Amino acid sequence: MKFNKHIENIKTYEGGKPIELVVREFGIKPEDVVKLASNENPNGCSSKVQEAVRNIVANMALYPDDSMMKLKAGLARRFDLKDENIIIGSGSDQIIELAIHAKANKDSKVLVNGVTFAMYDVYSKHIGCEIIKTTSTDSHDLEQFYTLYKEHNPDIIFLCTPNNPTGDATDAKDIFEFISKIDNDTLVVVDGAYMEYAKYKDSNKAIEPKELIEKFENVLYLGTFSKAYGLGGMRVGYGLGRADIIKQLYKLRPPFNITTLSLEAASVALEDEEFVKNSIEMNFNEMKRYENFANEQKIDIIESYTNFITLCFVNPRNSTDIADALLKRGMIVRDLSGYGMNAIRVTVGKPEQNSRFFELLLEYL
Amino acid sequence: MKFNKHIENIKTYEGGKPIELVVREFGIKPEDVVKLASNENPNGCSSKVQEAVRNIVANMALYPDDSMMKLKAGLARRFDLKDENIIIGSGSDQIIELAIHAKANKDSKVLVNGVTFAMYDVYSKHIGCEIIKTTSTDSHDLEQFYTLYKEHNPDIIFLCTPNNPTGDATDAKDIFEFISKIDNDTLVVVDGAYMEYAKYKDSNKAIEPKELIEKFENVLYLGTFSKAYGLGGMRVGYGLGRADIIKQLYKLRPPFNITTLSLEAASVALEDEEFVKNSIEMNFNEMKRYENFANEQKIDIIESYTNFITLCFVNPRNSTDIADALLKRGMIVRDLSGYGMNAIRVTVGKPEQNSRFFELLLEYL
Repeated sequence: MKFNKHIENIKTYEGGKPIELVVREFGIKPEDVVKLASNENPNGCSSKVQEAVRNIVANMALYPDDSMMKLKAGLARRFDLKDENIIIGSGSDQIIELAIHAKANKDSKVLVNGVTFAMYDVYSKHIGCEIIKTTSTDSHDLEQFYTLYKEHNPDIIFLCTPNNPTGDATDAKDIFEFISKIDNDTLVVVDGAYMEYAKYKDSNKAIEPKELIEKFENVLYLGTFSKAYGLGGMRVGYGLGRADIIKQLYKLRPPFNITTLSLEAASVALEDEEFVKNSIEMNFNEMKRYENFANEQKIDIIESYTNFITLCFVNPRNSTDIADALLKRGMIVRDLSGYGMNAIRVTVGKPEQNSRFFELLLEYL
Repeated sequence: MKFNKHIENIKTYEGGKPIELVVREFGIKPEDVVKLASNENPNGCSSKVQEAVRNIVANMALYPDDSMMKLKAGLARRFDLKDENIIIGSGSDQIIELAIHAKANKDSKVLVNGVTFAMYDVYSKHIGCEIIKTTSTDSHDLEQFYTLYKEHNPDIIFLCTPNNPTGDATDAKDIFEFISKIDNDTLVVVDGAYMEYAKYKDSNKAIEPKELIEKFENVLYLGTFSKAYGLGGMRVGYGLGRADIIKQLYKLRPPFNITTLSLEAASVALEDEEFVKNSIEMNFNEMKRYENFANEQKIDIIESYTNFITLCFVNPRNSTDIADALLKRGMIVRDLSGYGMNAIRVTVGKPEQNSRFFELLLEYL
């Protein structure tokens, strides 16, 4: 059977190895496997969220409230926005997908950073549009972005700050200045999946969605419950923008795209600010240990505004070999060779997990 | 900002009214609201599933196993198929979406029954392809399907059996015979969302996915955990087909499309056959009461092979008025006037819920 031509060359996305596979493949006990590969919150999720979800498991039989009244009210309060400025997605991934499907088509171009979140590329390929990339790796080179924008006239520009998988962040004032130069018919997506971390570390990096939306009519801001809120498994993200943009995305939203339990989990998570604050504090305390370790071992790092850190190696050290060696010892990290970098991305874990990482990496070095 | 032209005329999908809205709008106590509008399992979901999910709420922080090893193994056992024949979606909705995106484009035609599951139409519009409909309402007229197929050469044909929102089912032998006349480059989707019910009631309606897939290279079978398995809120469905079809759909699948808790819920639900059997038995026992009621009241019904029943009215009785009157008394059912029918669709509920429906409808009649 023939399928659409543009999907012929799409490679099926393969996520990280689940712990079970590592257990099976390398004969390591499950309790000895440490996964620092997916930037999950090492503190898990709020006990209040767990309790709330436990209390409503009988509701699994009931379709989700597709108006998402409670969660949208929570987000509206949090960001001082209105219902009409909010759309909820199955992870912020889904908002990326909706934005691309609504705005772009197979003749479109999409402009992204040289190294950035893989899903911009994945969803662009789904509809066959062309990806234009800057040559930047460890930070968004907004001058180059502007040059490429002028040259290619893309339908969408993705700015990821803090950037994944590198961890750097762009100053908010530079983002605002850049967007002010972009034509109103180009959609600029500002992906703030890790913004809670950046905001804590450096107020210069903090982007307020409300300010962004009030200033620009062509911006979509993305956030997620998968990181600081500790709900990576529940698939809840959101897009914030002017009502006319949100309305268009809504047209393509699959009904009931968030599970009944996920809606409750995210709503309660939003209210437990203490959990989020503690997670972020622990994250940056532990991050210092990574910085010290890297300093001692003369390994380059990219300064991180997220819950992960990127370690860059120099020949003959090779990130793929390093990631493989760690994997055989039960330590799962993300090799960035697929992004053209000789680097690994490591989620900042709990103190003992990070100690284990240092220990195993030292063994190898 | 300009968006893709074909989405301009899409109407935003609006799901049924959540119970909270009825409570607010009509001042009815929440405990007095009965929702028989979404074909949810009135028995809820298996207590084993509830326990399993309660036990892993801490895992909400962890990304789902994107290989879906456990659930796929369960489905492979259930249907005597291989992993490569299975794709899991966020509801079978998502498999519909993937099939349309993979196979069709804005120049395509999609052939469906006159009255059938709304999502075929919704997702076709998302990419701007043309929907061809038969004039059939209460059953698939396969002769007309064939005539329209010859005339329009659609890329996809959707056969929904049992059909939603009418409840009738097509004989398996007719489905097989029909597909044997269809060119191999047309994808035939057989949507068996309610098949567990049909299979129990009449073996002539039972379609075995394995047989379908072995016989035809151009078929995709859909199933769901939302109905008989009682997991409408968890968004898990599946597509079964030959490996080459599944592989194409996989290319467009959003990674991590099923939540961590949903994967566990569906895996455990699949093993609790007792729960499913009891639900289906109760359903058809209660269905008899609807049939008797309709008979006594001289209301036409469509014979149903599902967990809902469609009551057809004759002028001057009007389904919209009836649904509205019931709603004001706290009874939520589905008015089918939007499908061009003077009918309401009522989910077969628990005995007391059904009694209440009879009581309220009698008040009105």
